Amino acid sequence: MGMKTTAANKCQSHPATPELGLDGIPLFNGAAPAFLDKLKAASSTHDYAKGHVVFMQDDVAEWFYVVNSGWVKIFRQTLDGDEVIIDILPAGTLFGETELFSNHSFANSAEVVQDAKITAYPMSLLRNQISADPSFAVKMLEHILHGQREQTKEIEHRTIMNASQRLGCFLLRLINVKKIGPVVLHLPYDKTLIASRLGMQSETFSRALARLKSDLGMRVRGATIEIDSMDALISYTCSACSNAFPCAED
Amino acid sequence: MGMKTTAANKCQSHPATPELGLDGIPLFNGAAPAFLDKLKAASSTHDYAKGHVVFMQDDVAEWFYVVNSGWVKIFRQTLDGDEVIIDILPAGTLFGETELFSNHSFANSAEVVQDAKITAYPMSLLRNQISADPSFAVKMLEHILHGQREQTKEIEHRTIMNASQRLGCFLLRLINVKKIGPVVLHLPYDKTLIASRLGMQSETFSRALARLKSDLGMRVRGATIEIDSMDALISYTCSACSNAFPCAED
Repeated sequence: MGMKTTAANKCQSHPATPELGLDGIPLFNGAAPAFLDKLKAASSTHDYAKGHVVFMQDDVAEWFYVVNSGWVKIFRQTLDGDEVIIDILPAGTLFGETELFSNHSFANSAEVVQDAKITAYPMSLLRNQISADPSFAVKMLEHILHGQREQTKEIEHRTIMNASQRLGCFLLRLINVKKIGPVVLHLPYDKTLIASRLGMQSETFSRALARLKSDLGMRVRGATIEIDSMDALISYTCSACSNAFPCAED
Repeated sequence: MGMKTTAANKCQSHPATPELGLDGIPLFNGAAPAFLDKLKAASSTHDYAKGHVVFMQDDVAEWFYVVNSGWVKIFRQTLDGDEVIIDILPAGTLFGETELFSNHSFANSAEVVQDAKITAYPMSLLRNQISADPSFAVKMLEHILHGQREQTKEIEHRTIMNASQRLGCFLLRLINVKKIGPVVLHLPYDKTLIASRLGMQSETFSRALARLKSDLGMRVRGATIEIDSMDALISYTCSACSNAFPCAED
């Protein structure tokens, strides 16, 4: 499914390390060294250009992946050919690992949206470890449940927030900590993609941005955004969410 | 989280059995008899009237639950006081079990929306069994991942489907198998609740229903709906989904 901690969730804007592999992934913290060695030995890392399709919905799920650098979108395509972006994954994110059982086929598709270095690991090793090591099975459960909580929040937001609040939420997650005074931030990827990530048309996105500019005095120059008062943005956005700012990492 | 197989998913309209307990729940099929005995011995079953709150978001999660009869809504409340219904659970559904770890507090609230018989089981027993029994841990993972797949579909639908298609999807899931000729079905709960379950205002729901009546010749009398051609409804609805009808139980 790939619905893991995302750019927005993790408030990362760009990868700090060129190759992370499993090291930065909480799921593998404290995992058995022999298991990690086996995964690394069986892994393969490649550079992919924007547009490369890592897997398509219904493909056999024999590998899971880590984004080392770049960005990967997780999406679904309707029978009519429309695309729904479920998530945009930054460096340091695991994906594909949720297709562990479920008939071994991917429920979503994954495509590189900004040149990426991706490492693939055999799913069979993950599956075996879960059966063999109860403490790792518990870690995997925690990992999946964390992703599920984020998904429920996403359902809530796509249901109740207006477009400006959704965009406000996206920006606030990039900042993550409350700051006094003006804040300057840089959008992690292009606006068309952010619009799709938020499940809105480009025109809706433009109107949402215009509203944040006019109502909250936000200034936008290209990918740079200046926010005079976080308090105003928080009050405008988070009142339509069941969680107070900053979002708890639960 | 409680995002489990629902009325719509399971195409159940009303409970067949007055008390199901754990027997109808796939997660517990084939579980160790000693574990099931312990769960049953520690369980407590009560009848609750409509409006009873089973738990509130942020409550300590010491129990998980089974709906034996009636309906339970899983919802979240924004800081502004608006309610987002995440799911409406029919008889035979487990809920609360996803709060197994995550700081032991519920991420959602649960309230009885039609008089219900509910059984509570101690979460600690579930947690212990997952650590002690690797095959049960795998079953729990499968169970959670199934729920997560349904959630991803929900995100897709809330993003791309229009209100009439969402309603069409809800009806098709109640029917579930393709039938030649007219189909008569009964709405499982009242229209206001269906509207909320689908994340729409009552007026939007009315317009969506009117559109299905005018465009597809659907007839509505109270809670009874007559559909002349499933093909037309399927073509109208499922073209906006990434899965073909009938929905795969994955």
